[in-house]
This record gives sequence, structure tokens and C-alpha cells, in this order.
Amino acid sequence: MGGDFAPRATVAGALLALAELDSSHSIQLVGRSAVVGEQLDALFRDPEHATLVSQRGRIEIVDAPDVIEMTDKPGTAVRGKPKSSMIVGLRLQADGLSDAFVSAGNTGAQMAASMVVLRLHSGLKRPAIATVFPTARRPVVVLDSGANVDCGADELVQFARLGVVYAEDLLGRENPAVGLLSIGEEPEKGNAVVKEAHQLLGASGLNFLGNVEGRDLPAGQCDRGPIDIVVCDGFVGNVVLKFYEAIAPFIIGLLAKSGLDQHKMMSALKQLDYSEHGGAPLLGVNGVSIISHGKSSPRAIKNAIKVAVQAVETRMNEHIGRRLGENGENGENGRGAA
Amino acid sequence: MGGDFAPRATVAGALLALAELDSSHSIQLVGRSAVVGEQLDALFRDPEHATLVSQRGRIEIVDAPDVIEMTDKPGTAVRGKPKSSMIVGLRLQADGLSDAFVSAGNTGAQMAASMVVLRLHSGLKRPAIATVFPTARRPVVVLDSGANVDCGADELVQFARLGVVYAEDLLGRENPAVGLLSIGEEPEKGNAVVKEAHQLLGASGLNFLGNVEGRDLPAGQCDRGPIDIVVCDGFVGNVVLKFYEAIAPFIIGLLAKSGLDQHKMMSALKQLDYSEHGGAPLLGVNGVSIISHGKSSPRAIKNAIKVAVQAVETRMNEHIGRRLGENGENGENGRGAA
Repeated sequence: MGGDFAPRATVAGALLALAELDSSHSIQLVGRSAVVGEQLDALFRDPEHATLVSQRGRIEIVDAPDVIEMTDKPGTAVRGKPKSSMIVGLRLQADGLSDAFVSAGNTGAQMAASMVVLRLHSGLKRPAIATVFPTARRPVVVLDSGANVDCGADELVQFARLGVVYAEDLLGRENPAVGLLSIGEEPEKGNAVVKEAHQLLGASGLNFLGNVEGRDLPAGQCDRGPIDIVVCDGFVGNVVLKFYEAIAPFIIGLLAKSGLDQHKMMSALKQLDYSEHGGAPLLGVNGVSIISHGKSSPRAIKNAIKVAVQAVETRMNEHIGRRLGENGENGENGRGAA
Repeated sequence: MGGDFAPRATVAGALLALAELDSSHSIQLVGRSAVVGEQLDALFRDPEHATLVSQRGRIEIVDAPDVIEMTDKPGTAVRGKPKSSMIVGLRLQADGLSDAFVSAGNTGAQMAASMVVLRLHSGLKRPAIATVFPTARRPVVVLDSGANVDCGADELVQFARLGVVYAEDLLGRENPAVGLLSIGEEPEKGNAVVKEAHQLLGASGLNFLGNVEGRDLPAGQCDRGPIDIVVCDGFVGNVVLKFYEAIAPFIIGLLAKSGLDQHKMMSALKQLDYSEHGGAPLLGVNGVSIISHGKSSPRAIKNAIKVAVQAVETRMNEHIGRRLGENGENGENGRGAA
């Protein structure tokens, strides 16, 4: 039920995913069952999806009569709407009846509900949202992109550990390189938290590149090499993410005024379209909870579902548990060796 | 002597400015006088500048044997190199022998030297760097863009007051609208400092739009109307500024791969070129100190000098003094009326 174009975009995205995933995967559509059922029937009548009618058995509709609105406060929504698709869908996973959860609904509510229903890995205070930024090189994982606005240095280090698992499991990177977002490459540049995090990351045992700057993000690399992960607090991460999403349309608009072919440009900049990259995992919760953009198209939902499948198949959640569990020991070793 | 292409770019920029400014303006070139004099002679031999030889009397060379390097620490440079072009140039202004100072040198040193030599307006803890961002609408002033990394809410309010004077005097805006950079438009969105600043700005008597988001920056407007000034701490401001500077070349690179005409694109995106906008005033010091990009071309230096002239002619510095002096009274009135 969540997202600006729900339930049509969500259900259509689920059908697109089913067509691409092998037959061992099935999808639960959680929401007001009458509305979801009607939408599903309508889509099956559409020639684009008609060939999937035979796959109807891979879809289960799970009733969730409450709807969390985009304007609802997260805490209130989670407590006051226990039969929302958000809570019901996450509960299925906690109860072992599903492997992953995807939503394009209220992000704050998804985060709060995921923390309540799935719980956090031990040692974490809050989950982080990991977003993939297209760059001139390979995509870079930026986290946190908005879940945590006031972060301590130790939280930035945890984001780095979570980002490493993401880069390994979902992007297939080996020994991924971590950059700390700052305003100069020297360790003494940055605000108080970033300067402290620089020291902690240097002693963390991770493949730490040092500080990276705003200009290194579109490049995907800094003077010290290619970047796989950029760590920042959720305030900076969210500002940069929203800025990035808005900049390509702005530049295309400027170029179109000069008579350049808008269609050709949009096709050339396809890799900047967030819907290509699907959803952003909420990292640190004990399970798989994928956040999709509120404006998700069916294609974006399909890609978010594929991210969820990949997270399940690579056992990303267990990997996070191991990585955070190793934390104490490795942290000590790292510090000893530094 | 400052900047990646000094002294050639700096001296050439001064000549370009002289050609455009009326004859009442003169320029002091501060640096190693032999080097600067040779550079000047060389440029006068260049056909591009030959017509300016008659204007030689409007140029004074002021000797400053020390040079602050880009890698020097600001405090050390200011104390240890009292005969640098930075200190000598600013001292001329403090002594009433010039009206404004422009440099493409070490930004941290320029800030420290400006604070020591020109001093700050009373009530300020630190100056702020105001940068003009091109947008789909009119340009927006973003401050702070890097001078202050750990800011309190009261400092963000002072940035707003400084930005208002900039927008009025240098951009000719009336009753300029102030946005507070955050991660959602609701007053309760943001980190602790931003949430507090939101309340203070609401009671400041300024034309306060409320929170603006990363996506509103390229647009130059938010749901509540056009934006003239965006207030943020210098960490976020610097990250976004450097990101912005790098993004147009990145996108042009992607489009060029698809066979779109690179030259045509660069010409269409000319307004995104920082050199078009000249220098960034260091606001809050008692005088005029304009920071130019380290990579400044002669054209960028010329535009920075024109910004300096405009700041002097509009008496921006006195205006800032009045605006900050009014602060106490207006603040009270604003709060009373709110």
C-alpha cells in the first residue's frame, strides 16, 4: 500500500520480478486484500502481464487492513497501526514465513517498524540506509543516507562495517575500500566527529582510504584509489542524495534549452536513474528490509525485489552478524597492529 | 602569489578587470615585486593586453617577499610569514590604503589573516564563506561553504543575516528569502542544531522560508517559493559545493560517450562554471576579503575583482555592521511579533 503510485506500481513491480526470478521464488503482496486482489486481476488482463497468469500460484495476498500514510509520524504509526502492511509484512519475516521485505512507503515508519519487529543486531543503536551512487567509475555505496542525523564517531565506524558487507555481498567487491566524507583529504580536516572517526577507522582493520571529498563522489575515486564505500552521517548523506537525484534533470533541462536531444540525453544518463538501482537496504536490522523510493515505478520495485533476493541468497544478514560480532576482537587486533 | 596558476593568472585577471572597470579604480598587485613586475611586462607585450599599456599608472606593485604555500597551516602561515602577500595586502586595507582584497591563495590562511588584520564585526565568532550556486531559477547564495565546520544554531542565524546583506547588495534582491538546509521540509526534520536554528530563524524577523532540501538547491526554489539564501554549516556546505563543481563535468562526460557534442554542451552549461561567478566574499570580517578558487583563470580573477568593487560600492561591509548591530533590537521585535 506504500508509495506514491501504490498499489498499482507495487503490484506491477512484483509481476515484473516474478517474470525474471526463477520459479523457486514467490511473492506475498501485503495490503488491503480486496484492493490488492482487484489490482492484480486488472494487471493480469493487461497484455503486458497476461503471460504471467500461469504464475498466479507464486503470489499470495496477505490482508493488512491498516494503511500508514506518508504524513504519519513513524512512532505513532507503528504503535497505532499494528495491522498495517508494514507491520504485517515484517512480522511474516520475523515469524519465518518470508525471507525479505520490500516497501515504497513511509521511510521513517519502515525504519521504526523494522527495528521493532526484526530488532537490531547487538551492539547497534540504529540501522543505516545504504544507497548506491552512480559514478564515473563503479557505483559507490553511501551510508548513512538519512536514518541517523546526529551520529557519534563509533556509529560512523559501524556504518563502514555495514557498508563493507553490502559491497561484498550485493556488489561483489573484494576487500572494499572505505572513504570518510570530509572537506579535505588531510586527517585533521572535518568536523569534530569526522576527525575522531578518521582515527577509529584507521585502527579498525578495514581497508580505509582516509578522507574523501564531495568531488570524489561523482568520480568514484580519490587520489588514493577507487572508492567502494563512502561513510557519512545521515544528515549529510541525505542532503547529497537528494541533491544528486535532482541534478541530472536540472542539467538535462539546461542542455535541452540549447537544442540538444532530450530523449538521447535521458537514455545516455540512464545509469543515473535511481530506479535502475532498486531499493536501499536498511542495514543493521536482523533481517532484510529494503527501502524503495516513494516515487518508485514498477521497474524500480522489480529491482528492489531483486536486491532483496540477492541479500537473501548471499546471506547478507548473517554476514552482518558475523562482521559485527568479530568487531570486538578485530577492533582490538586492528588497534594493536596500527 | 596565491593560486595554482599564479602569478600569471592573477596579474592577467587584474588587467582584464582594469579594462572593464572605469578609470577611478586602481589595482595593487601584492607579491614578490620582481616576479610580479616581470609578469606584468610580459603580459603587456602580449597583443591581448597591449592596449592597456596606457593604463599602467592605475597599477601599483607592492612588495611582499614571503609566500604562503597551499600546504601551509593557516595559523603558522599568518604568524610566521608577516611579509606575505596575504598579510601585506590585507594590511593595506586596514590602514586605509585600499578598499578590498582578492586572493586565490590558501583559503584557510586568507580566513585567518582576514580575522587577524581586518578583525570581525562584533558579536561574530567566525566569518562565513558565501558561495553563489547556479540554479534552474536565479542564483542562490549558500553559506557557510567551508569556514565553520562545527556550528551552533546561533551561528546559523548569523549566516542568514550575512547572507541577506550579500543577496541585497551583490545580487540586488529585495527582502531575500532564507531557507535552512535540512532533510525534510517539516520543522522537526534535521539534526539537533538545525532544529534549534529553525526555531530561532522563525523568530528572527528575517524572510524565513523554513527548511529546504538537497533537491531544492538545483531548482532554486522549494514548495514555499523561490530561494535567495541557503543556510548550512560549513561541513555540509563544502561537501555540496565540491560535489556540485564535479558533477557537470561528470555528466558531460557521460553524454559525450553517447556522441553528444561536448563543445556545445560546455557552452550550454557555461552558467555552471564557477569562474563566471568570481570570488566568494568572506562575510563578517570588517572589510572586503574575496576568496577566489585556487584554480582561478584570469577570467575568474577578473570576476572576483568585480565582486570586490561591487561590495565596496554598495558599502556592503557597513551594511553588515548595521544588520548585525540591529540584531539585538530586531531579534527582540521579531520574537515579540512572532
